[in-house]
Amino acid sequence: MKRYLPLFAIAAICAAFPVAAQEAKTYPAPSEIVAVARADEWVTIAPSDLLVMDLAPDSKGNPRRVVIQLMPAPFSQGWVGNIRKLAAAHWWDGTSINRVQDNYVVQWGDATEKKALPQGLATMGATDYVTPDWLAKDWIFARADGRPDAYAAAHGFYIGWPLAQGREGLWPVHCYGMVGVGRNLSPDTGTGAELYTVIGHAPRHLDRNIAVVGRVIEGIEQLSSLPRGTGALGFYEKENERVPILSARLGNEAKDVPVFEHLSTDSASFAAYADARANRRDPFFNVPAGGADICNIPVPIRRKAK
Amino acid sequence: MKRYLPLFAIAAICAAFPVAAQEAKTYPAPSEIVAVARADEWVTIAPSDLLVMDLAPDSKGNPRRVVIQLMPAPFSQGWVGNIRKLAAAHWWDGTSINRVQDNYVVQWGDATEKKALPQGLATMGATDYVTPDWLAKDWIFARADGRPDAYAAAHGFYIGWPLAQGREGLWPVHCYGMVGVGRNLSPDTGTGAELYTVIGHAPRHLDRNIAVVGRVIEGIEQLSSLPRGTGALGFYEKENERVPILSARLGNEAKDVPVFEHLSTDSASFAAYADARANRRDPFFNVPAGGADICNIPVPIRRKAK
Repeated sequence: MKRYLPLFAIAAICAAFPVAAQEAKTYPAPSEIVAVARADEWVTIAPSDLLVMDLAPDSKGNPRRVVIQLMPAPFSQGWVGNIRKLAAAHWWDGTSINRVQDNYVVQWGDATEKKALPQGLATMGATDYVTPDWLAKDWIFARADGRPDAYAAAHGFYIGWPLAQGREGLWPVHCYGMVGVGRNLSPDTGTGAELYTVIGHAPRHLDRNIAVVGRVIEGIEQLSSLPRGTGALGFYEKENERVPILSARLGNEAKDVPVFEHLSTDSASFAAYADARANRRDPFFNVPAGGADICNIPVPIRRKAK
Repeated sequence: MKRYLPLFAIAAICAAFPVAAQEAKTYPAPSEIVAVARADEWVTIAPSDLLVMDLAPDSKGNPRRVVIQLMPAPFSQGWVGNIRKLAAAHWWDGTSINRVQDNYVVQWGDATEKKALPQGLATMGATDYVTPDWLAKDWIFARADGRPDAYAAAHGFYIGWPLAQGREGLWPVHCYGMVGVGRNLSPDTGTGAELYTVIGHAPRHLDRNIAVVGRVIEGIEQLSSLPRGTGALGFYEKENERVPILSARLGNEAKDVPVFEHLSTDSASFAAYADARANRRDPFFNVPAGGADICNIPVPIRRKAK
């Protein structure tokens, strides 16, 4: 069978063949490195750190679920705390996906913009978009990987997340699938009720301007494959284009939520994976790139085997 | 009306207000810079440099058209020549979109892998993925913009296209919407019959490994919003999931093709636009990034006013 392009399947088959001489050495693909990572290199994600969003079934009646992992401390915790309160209040139930802009974002929340918010939400300000370095233990010693970044002095991975670094501290970055907090013009106007996820090339100009509060770890295709909105900024123009949100719950309060785990970004396997993403030497590739954009090294996440 | 997040519409409204003092100066958004570019800063794209692909109508009977601009000389011309021959032979008529992999590519061609190719297609080799610098006049003097690039020693824009540069020469880069040539393991196996476009974060590890032959300039949403394939690498598993291609023709041979134009990448307006993409100072933004990924500076393309 002949299959074309990004042929990791063929690469995997080739890499499985024994090789006799150094010249003929085959290198594993990133996915193969991840596949053989040791069990103790994976970190379980607490169900209470998930936001599980069930959309109305699709036109064929298939269920649609999106699972989001919330950003861990010390990053964006004011907004994450609000999201926990909004989920506990079942605030998103009956709201909808209202905006799908190609190569940019899918956004959801209250289309009427009139739904009352629960009491006690925190107000976050302009300084909350960046976290002081000293709050992220071990970052300085272990994280910056030395690859150039057009958007920051340095970047790297820390407790399972991609981060950027500048003089003022550390911040989470807008990669594909990251979830952020919609806001109005003033930086203190985002509560966490209006959320979006990235479905295109990383819009990193949003870093430090909008809070990143999580990432979609399963079901991104339920959002990225939605019809694009035809209004300004990709908003749906008709009410019946919106996709209803049936419920959004923390993972420990939702039904039938599997346990997820991410590859430790401190592990030897992650280091080898990141290197392989930057220097593809598996058989399909003729020229290793010699580097990788941080958003092109997605942290491996999977369902934990039962 | 309150609207959230990437609020370029509000930014545009604010920027339109007159300002009295330097302190209160508002800066235009990138889209506003493009909107006021002079007519002579736009470059008409020849219809014969377009590949117009008509898909079967969607489930509601709406037509689906994708317009691709082919890569100009001196880049990838062997494959582009093959694509012209394939279009002239109506080779894609009756083929289909067979693969949709989230955050990666949409791929089309002959799913049976048995359809005979027209006579006289060129065979391109490993050295054809990079173009010697001296073939691209003016590049060296004007193009590299000094921003760091994880994938290349330098990059910039040339005759309307993003390019990267290394010791061996210049090459087009895999940004969102770019069209490339599927191939098998050997670098000389891609003819141009099997094509894909990028629908996610720029997979620049493919640069120099796969030929970039064009970019989608209209209708990308007809591809990026398709259901993701559930087979390995996002291939559709069932024949009825494939999206039929009714026809693919060069722009001068297709019906009802508008004229397109791109903003000259040599123009003052493009320089201002690129700077604004790297340093957003319009009212929504609190912190300008100080740089931009080359794939986050898409070359402005529009239908030419009649």
